Amino acid sequence: MARWEPGARERLVVAAVDLFTEQGYDATTVAQIAERAGVTKSTFFRHFADKRELLVAGQETLGRLLAEGIAEAPADATPLQAVAAGLERASAAMGPMNRELGPRLKAAVAASAELQERDALKSVSLAAAMTAALAARGVPGPTAALAGELGVLAFKRGYAEWSEGDREADDDLAGYALAALEELRAASASLG
Amino acid sequence: MARWEPGARERLVVAAVDLFTEQGYDATTVAQIAERAGVTKSTFFRHFADKRELLVAGQETLGRLLAEGIAEAPADATPLQAVAAGLERASAAMGPMNRELGPRLKAAVAASAELQERDALKSVSLAAAMTAALAARGVPGPTAALAGELGVLAFKRGYAEWSEGDREADDDLAGYALAALEELRAASASLG
Repeated sequence: MARWEPGARERLVVAAVDLFTEQGYDATTVAQIAERAGVTKSTFFRHFADKRELLVAGQETLGRLLAEGIAEAPADATPLQAVAAGLERASAAMGPMNRELGPRLKAAVAASAELQERDALKSVSLAAAMTAALAARGVPGPTAALAGELGVLAFKRGYAEWSEGDREADDDLAGYALAALEELRAASASLG
Repeated sequence: MARWEPGARERLVVAAVDLFTEQGYDATTVAQIAERAGVTKSTFFRHFADKRELLVAGQETLGRLLAEGIAEAPADATPLQAVAAGLERASAAMGPMNRELGPRLKAAVAASAELQERDALKSVSLAAAMTAALAARGVPGPTAALAGELGVLAFKRGYAEWSEGDREADDDLAGYALAALEELRAASASLG
């Protein structure tokens, strides 16, 4: 039995990702997504302006949360401590739906050149959001850029482990993302 | 007076980038690119399969050169020394045309959502190429991923400074990319 009851918005996202995997992003219509989700087209349009917006909406929220966590970290936090605060803030917004979606999204991206481009843009824009939030704290450019990239790597590696592991477990994304960040911090000492 | 005489392939790339900036990627046709470059459509198709290939060709070459430089670095090179060898190898292939193209490409990317996605995919694929080449040398996963990201940041930062600075100067990209890598290496000590 499902551990969560998805609402219309969540069902639309899951239906879209499944259809993108099955038949490609280009070939999938809003009508098909709505039908698969068991809602009307007008319900779709109450939640999303179009098919593309369905993918972009999550990215903008994520970038905002990462940046907010960084901005609100204690004044004496190091750059990576601020990134950790951003990861915690963003992770708190990722629930069971995001966890279940992980492997499906991965399959959809693997199957579509267009979704690979969108996924790459997402990585780059999240790094830019974190870099800008760090720069606003007075972190110098190269350090901010590097810490932003570490933040994205940690989020992606943590999310992959969280969503590909035991999805019935009761653990949050935050622990995985912070462990990945710590692993990357340790790795930075062996770059040579 | 131009310091280099571009051939048909170079003229096609410059014409394409200018047209993408002026009227967008989608609206630009192969016929327009050929006309602007002063060559026939069949000359275009001797060099590129289509409009998209014109952008992707350079990316694949770049990824291959970065990976080759890393693969052929001395066995006792540290991960970042191997990345530096990759940057040197790739930089050696970047001539006056690439330098002149920098600011135009930047303008074209700024003006087009599609080119932003392609540019992001380029960054991600170059990082993946370097990460894979480092992993093949036995560098552990997190260190390889991090060094690959540093390599891309260094290449992009070095390229931006090289192509936005004095384009008549007689200096190579390699010096800029290696200086950017060193700056990032130093920054990694202040991540906290």
